[in-house]
Amino acid sequence: MHNKFIVLEGLEGAGKTTAKDTIVKILHAHGVSDIVFTREPGGTPLAEELRTLIKQSANVDPPTDKAEVLMLYAARVQLVEKVIKPALDRGAWVLGDRHDLSSQAYQGGGRGIDPRLMASLRDSVLGSFRPDLTLYLDILPQQGLERVGLRGELDRIEQGSLAFFERTRARYLQLVAADNRIKTIDASQSVQQVSESIKTILNEWLSKQDNII
Amino acid sequence: MHNKFIVLEGLEGAGKTTAKDTIVKILHAHGVSDIVFTREPGGTPLAEELRTLIKQSANVDPPTDKAEVLMLYAARVQLVEKVIKPALDRGAWVLGDRHDLSSQAYQGGGRGIDPRLMASLRDSVLGSFRPDLTLYLDILPQQGLERVGLRGELDRIEQGSLAFFERTRARYLQLVAADNRIKTIDASQSVQQVSESIKTILNEWLSKQDNII
Repeated sequence: MHNKFIVLEGLEGAGKTTAKDTIVKILHAHGVSDIVFTREPGGTPLAEELRTLIKQSANVDPPTDKAEVLMLYAARVQLVEKVIKPALDRGAWVLGDRHDLSSQAYQGGGRGIDPRLMASLRDSVLGSFRPDLTLYLDILPQQGLERVGLRGELDRIEQGSLAFFERTRARYLQLVAADNRIKTIDASQSVQQVSESIKTILNEWLSKQDNII
Repeated sequence: MHNKFIVLEGLEGAGKTTAKDTIVKILHAHGVSDIVFTREPGGTPLAEELRTLIKQSANVDPPTDKAEVLMLYAARVQLVEKVIKPALDRGAWVLGDRHDLSSQAYQGGGRGIDPRLMASLRDSVLGSFRPDLTLYLDILPQQGLERVGLRGELDRIEQGSLAFFERTRARYLQLVAADNRIKTIDASQSVQQVSESIKTILNEWLSKQDNII
């Protein structure tokens, strides 16, 4: 089976970290052991510096909405060119905690950035490069934020209003519906149920990849 | 006379710093004393952090060409929205050491970034916001680099090949020819001759602004 680029997406508190462990177990069961993990924004020294500048809530000079999205794409292209593409080229699998869909949802939907700028950044910066499979963990913003609240302080982006997360989820749902490489998981279920859903969807998808190749 | 946004442009070693002093003297002579100085990339805490990440030559993870241009635009939009536009709104003059023309010349010309990305960034990020007047100090790359060499170590961008600066100058000349808000100064002249040229051009331009307003 050829190596693939798989991405986890979803609102804060959707359960991406637990889902990651589930996916790794499934990949191991399929004999896949060479897996490169990425998180966005971040994943290279420069991209992690940009992540810090974007996230820090005590920032004396927080980025404007446009500066934020430009920094996110700078971090993304650095990660894609320095880490993700080289990993795929050498035959590794890549499992990403967030990728471009997050920017489309949070900045395009939540912050309401000009759709032309969002489309132009995606197409000009990334070309046709896309994940082979994206698992979108769908959760109501209220429920996700309650879970995150248990984990400690919210960062600058998480501190946005509930309305911001409603707009973000609406854009997620819109984009998910338009792309059959994105599969939705109901993340409002119990941890065990979410894992079962991921297993079913990922095993089915992997079996199809076997057939094709 | 209404306040204006004036920008100095040119290759390394073209003499922008000396030209800045000349311009300030001329503006003072016209009764203009409230002048905000900017430099790009930079000029806000976030933009200066981005400048450091872009410029440092010992960087273990230097930005890819696309990451660099995205960081430059992030710094620019932060400066425009937080410093330049508020300064102009309150009636101050703004004198910029570099602005968008530098990205068009260095990244678009020198680095050969996709022209669609360059145009899209300029239009989507800046809208129709442009300097009222740009003074472009034209110098042969070889001559400029010889002058800079006298000032010490070259940073990461300055270390580019001579061919890079030839492409950058070619794009400057192309853009200057297409925009009557950009005036060219022959920066190969002596310091005194350059100052005289700036005086002539700026005084003429300022007198026209008086007539209009």
